[in-house]
Amino acid sequence: MNKFLNDPRAAIAESLRGFARCHADEIVLNEQPRFVRRREPDRGKVGIISGGGSGHEPLHAGYVGLGMLDAAVPGEVFSSPSPDQIVAAAEAVRGAPGVLFLVKNYSGDVMNFEMASEMLGGNCRSVLIEDDVAVENSTHTVGRRGVAGTLVVEKIVGAAAERGADLDACEQMAEEAARGTRTMGVALGGCRVPTAERPNLEIAPGEMEIGVGIHGEPGRRRVPLEKADAIMEALLAPILEELNSQGSEPVLLFVNGFGGTAMMELYLLYDAAARILDARNVAICRSLVGNYVTSLEMPGASVTLTRMSAPLLELWDAAVRTPALRWGE
Amino acid sequence: MNKFLNDPRAAIAESLRGFARCHADEIVLNEQPRFVRRREPDRGKVGIISGGGSGHEPLHAGYVGLGMLDAAVPGEVFSSPSPDQIVAAAEAVRGAPGVLFLVKNYSGDVMNFEMASEMLGGNCRSVLIEDDVAVENSTHTVGRRGVAGTLVVEKIVGAAAERGADLDACEQMAEEAARGTRTMGVALGGCRVPTAERPNLEIAPGEMEIGVGIHGEPGRRRVPLEKADAIMEALLAPILEELNSQGSEPVLLFVNGFGGTAMMELYLLYDAAARILDARNVAICRSLVGNYVTSLEMPGASVTLTRMSAPLLELWDAAVRTPALRWGE
Repeated sequence: MNKFLNDPRAAIAESLRGFARCHADEIVLNEQPRFVRRREPDRGKVGIISGGGSGHEPLHAGYVGLGMLDAAVPGEVFSSPSPDQIVAAAEAVRGAPGVLFLVKNYSGDVMNFEMASEMLGGNCRSVLIEDDVAVENSTHTVGRRGVAGTLVVEKIVGAAAERGADLDACEQMAEEAARGTRTMGVALGGCRVPTAERPNLEIAPGEMEIGVGIHGEPGRRRVPLEKADAIMEALLAPILEELNSQGSEPVLLFVNGFGGTAMMELYLLYDAAARILDARNVAICRSLVGNYVTSLEMPGASVTLTRMSAPLLELWDAAVRTPALRWGE
Repeated sequence: MNKFLNDPRAAIAESLRGFARCHADEIVLNEQPRFVRRREPDRGKVGIISGGGSGHEPLHAGYVGLGMLDAAVPGEVFSSPSPDQIVAAAEAVRGAPGVLFLVKNYSGDVMNFEMASEMLGGNCRSVLIEDDVAVENSTHTVGRRGVAGTLVVEKIVGAAAERGADLDACEQMAEEAARGTRTMGVALGGCRVPTAERPNLEIAPGEMEIGVGIHGEPGRRRVPLEKADAIMEALLAPILEELNSQGSEPVLLFVNGFGGTAMMELYLLYDAAARILDARNVAICRSLVGNYVTSLEMPGASVTLTRMSAPLLELWDAAVRTPALRWGE
């Protein structure tokens, strides 16, 4: 896995500098401590902040902007940001309405966002995102992992905050969106962290890892590669099992690439997913396909469904203007 | 290179079906002969049509929509579309103002778009895109290859047509944009066509192919992998050598991923490119970073510069609403 690097230890710093310069009309990078914020923070609204290990780009910094995040806090690759970073980001955007942290459920992230909350002393809340149905508990998680569904929660809550929802309402909306969002992924190969010599995961030709996490963590099973329809069936079945108990609203269907799979295959997976949902009489009201929550250059994909109540749908459709997601301007 | 496939021969058909369903509010897929068009064609304007081999997604179908293409004609993977397909696409969108074909310079594409023009009998023109500075002539090209700069030409000409420019004006604008656009790429690995057993290009760890084409065609040289700054210098030097003779307008800087390189690395390359341009006193007026013109899941990237005169800049900034590129709605 050859990579474009100068000093591997400087990869995040250089990449964020490029990102900040490329999107200088919309965002600002603070280098020390490291965070990204909107160029023009609106302290009259609830500040929505997310963060976590780098390597999942465009998550989270790519979603800073109107209608989504106010700030993003990138850690080292696949490592949590420090409490200091989180506090600095919060102080840069927080006004009287307070801040809401959207935290993917990994032990390090949970701990550091909690410490930051204590340091900030009130007027800040956290909502955990635990959308991955693949595994319960693991080396780095108590409960379920937060994966691609994070984007959905960030979009919906970001829109609510933009419309002036208060901290209670934002928190409730985040919990509702997170509860209705379920994801499962599959890896067809590994990726290599810039400072590492070897890939984080090795998958032989003709094999796949079902239920993989976004850091290449083991999933449910290593099995022979199957056809796309069968893979999608294996991903959707456990998701639907859980969501079916939550009502019958139409779903958002989100097929997410991990960074190393061709768009041709992602749309092919979308086609497979749509046919499976048709056969099960699950209505698709919105769709998203692309590399939105990645694991560096890992080949693989995940599928996310969110039950879309009318309020969630309206917030999903609301204008968003960020480096990596924009519509309805 | 494990892939998400059912029958490999049906990959394009299934993928396009997924694409069409995902973006059904904006585009329509015609399956036989195969082309993608805007849902609501405007026959009162010049129709802008592009096409070429599949495998470069989101090029071209992802750029069908307001302010860009009226139709896109996808061939098999890395193979030209047939004249029949092109004619059908043109007939579906052509009104009195005529159609303009934007054709990447590959012998098969050039021949088939020419045949289509003859079959359509008038009121249609073609502009060749030959932005790749890496090689002159090759197995599949007389002259230079058309690569990532195609997106820039499609965006600018699409905006001109949307504003009511006539066929002559659209043709001139396409030629001006194409002439001011230069690209060079580098591969760090290969990709695998769905129906093939092996990758199209094998690159060892610690090596790279400088000047590669978007089908994995050989470039200028196979050399040891260097640092990102040195690679970017090697890509930009021949581009600047040509563009410097064209004036001193600020440039659009477009860092394009081939599909298998992490966003972190693409922004790191952008940072390197921006520093090199600063040092050479080349002003950057607009930027684009992402996987826009790919070679399936190939790891690698290209850099494109376009000299942006005031009219080109205005057209670049104009509203665009397509599946893969949208701003200023």
